[in-house]
Amino acid sequence: MKKAAVIGAGSWGTALSMVLADNGHEVKLWTRSQEHAESIQQTGKNLRYLSGVELPSSIQATSSIQEAVSGSEFVIVVVPTKAMREVLPMLKDFLEKDAVIVHASKGIEPETHLRISEIIAEEVGDRPVACISGPSHAEEVCKRQPTTITSSSIHTEIAEQVQDLFMNQSFRVYTNPDLIGVEIGGSLKNIIAIGSGMTSGLGFGDNARAALMTRGLAEISRLGVKLGANPLTFSGLSGLGDLIVTCTSFHSRNWRAGNMIGKGMSVSQVEAEMGMVVEGVRTTKAAFQLSKKLGVDMPITKELFEVLFEDKDVEKAVNALMGRVKKKEVEGLMSGFDKMNNNDPLDHFEP
Amino acid sequence: MKKAAVIGAGSWGTALSMVLADNGHEVKLWTRSQEHAESIQQTGKNLRYLSGVELPSSIQATSSIQEAVSGSEFVIVVVPTKAMREVLPMLKDFLEKDAVIVHASKGIEPETHLRISEIIAEEVGDRPVACISGPSHAEEVCKRQPTTITSSSIHTEIAEQVQDLFMNQSFRVYTNPDLIGVEIGGSLKNIIAIGSGMTSGLGFGDNARAALMTRGLAEISRLGVKLGANPLTFSGLSGLGDLIVTCTSFHSRNWRAGNMIGKGMSVSQVEAEMGMVVEGVRTTKAAFQLSKKLGVDMPITKELFEVLFEDKDVEKAVNALMGRVKKKEVEGLMSGFDKMNNNDPLDHFEP
Repeated sequence: MKKAAVIGAGSWGTALSMVLADNGHEVKLWTRSQEHAESIQQTGKNLRYLSGVELPSSIQATSSIQEAVSGSEFVIVVVPTKAMREVLPMLKDFLEKDAVIVHASKGIEPETHLRISEIIAEEVGDRPVACISGPSHAEEVCKRQPTTITSSSIHTEIAEQVQDLFMNQSFRVYTNPDLIGVEIGGSLKNIIAIGSGMTSGLGFGDNARAALMTRGLAEISRLGVKLGANPLTFSGLSGLGDLIVTCTSFHSRNWRAGNMIGKGMSVSQVEAEMGMVVEGVRTTKAAFQLSKKLGVDMPITKELFEVLFEDKDVEKAVNALMGRVKKKEVEGLMSGFDKMNNNDPLDHFEP
Repeated sequence: MKKAAVIGAGSWGTALSMVLADNGHEVKLWTRSQEHAESIQQTGKNLRYLSGVELPSSIQATSSIQEAVSGSEFVIVVVPTKAMREVLPMLKDFLEKDAVIVHASKGIEPETHLRISEIIAEEVGDRPVACISGPSHAEEVCKRQPTTITSSSIHTEIAEQVQDLFMNQSFRVYTNPDLIGVEIGGSLKNIIAIGSGMTSGLGFGDNARAALMTRGLAEISRLGVKLGANPLTFSGLSGLGDLIVTCTSFHSRNWRAGNMIGKGMSVSQVEAEMGMVVEGVRTTKAAFQLSKKLGVDMPITKELFEVLFEDKDVEKAVNALMGRVKKKEVEGLMSGFDKMNNNDPLDHFEP
């Protein structure tokens, strides 16, 4: 039995709390709002984000970050990227000496282009950090339907501790030491989800979506490899797996945003309509900036950036993608894999 | 303007005929049944397989294989794998000296484990052969919706001729010299489509499907690499792209078969219900035999083989897949990539 704090009571934080409670751990679920914490305690449900799910009574909801973090061996941070800089300083002083920080957030910080684990290092200093990521709708996890995810850390023993913490019969956890690849794949897939929604909004079908996903994953891999990731990670659960779930589900927030844009709405109209910032929109900007800085060819990201931030007509953007000069399929794939032979990222995978 | 024969007037053969006619080529569409050929000629539609589509009047339907093949510079064979041994000898004697044979079929021959291009070589001798494959519902191609496919041949100039033949604004063709990878990816994805249907039939959700697809593609890649394919091909349109379309569309015959099996029907009941042989069922057997012969670990294919041919309970099979010992994600991916360093398949991609 371990003690764990889950920071953030959205649908995914709540689902992860359930997995931990199912495994017999002591779980404190933190939410900023006292009212929300009390509601979870009183109803045994997260009416705001997962209303249909009966939570195990062992989950303790609280709005006191000290109460959640003090004494916890694992602190699982599940807040949006843009909330990281605010939440991490709040919990820093209550962290136990050996506490492991696990994050389950997906994004890249605009302007700095930092990954979440790098933001964590800046905010709380040099501590063991892991990331969990993979194809996982919260609703299905709460129904104990079969789900697989990746636990990643540059320290193998930390990735394995997190694996042990979450693993059970329906929730399978694999480890991968390529933290860069896992974080980049999880974040950038949201760009392709927006594009996928756009093609549907334009009235295109499965063929166009599959092409976009395939070539989208290739350009994500190219950027990731340039940043030091292992290209194989993008073929795994946190890359391809998560891409599939996000791009083929109407429930994905990013997909829905893209769909509305494809139908003619502007980004600001969409964000007003959805009542929240869409993570993939910010990620598109960060990835586009990164691709320019690093000299990586990312045609899909570039077209989406122009649609989202420069008022490019969405149909013109899709036509631009389709109408590119005929070429060899592998040119696009290969350019990301050049580095493979130089740096031999396969070495990452040796124990 | 080129002269082309399309052999097989199912939905895909008909859609390819339309693309060729759109590009201004002279197209003869062969079907075995004289009645079917006359119906296409008279109605301008393929009422049997694509009833809603108005065909260009320049397409000539015929049941005479001599009329179709004689004088054609390209002969596009689009018949089921099991019909290859019957149809190829019929057309052999009418082939022009320099005619290029293109196939768009997906399967591996049971017992011999030959790919389609190898069957073609056995039946018509040493001739230029190309394969076209990729994420492409026929219905969407007929609506001129954006579609991308791969043209593959061991002879680059042949792959490029086929690219030129089919390429237009909405139908984009990329070339890839890795014929083995393209044929294996296109065939074996049907196994994963059956498995994908099964998980849905059992009531599981998107998380389980994404996991199955991700790990399914990894085991397909392992087998392909063992057969000499370039691992990158499986991340391309004919691998990942086609897998996405087949596993996430309810229209896929293989998906529907798996879905019925997941709900408790037997294979023979399913084939009786569908009124046809399901290509992926035969491919599962061939791939399972191949994996044993070559010593490649293919856990998904093995479980599906046992469900399809040895009456294994489908729920037990899925649990067996989910309940495997915890392990490193990359073990599964890596084993297929070992060969990469030895044989350097990246060389395949140099012009």
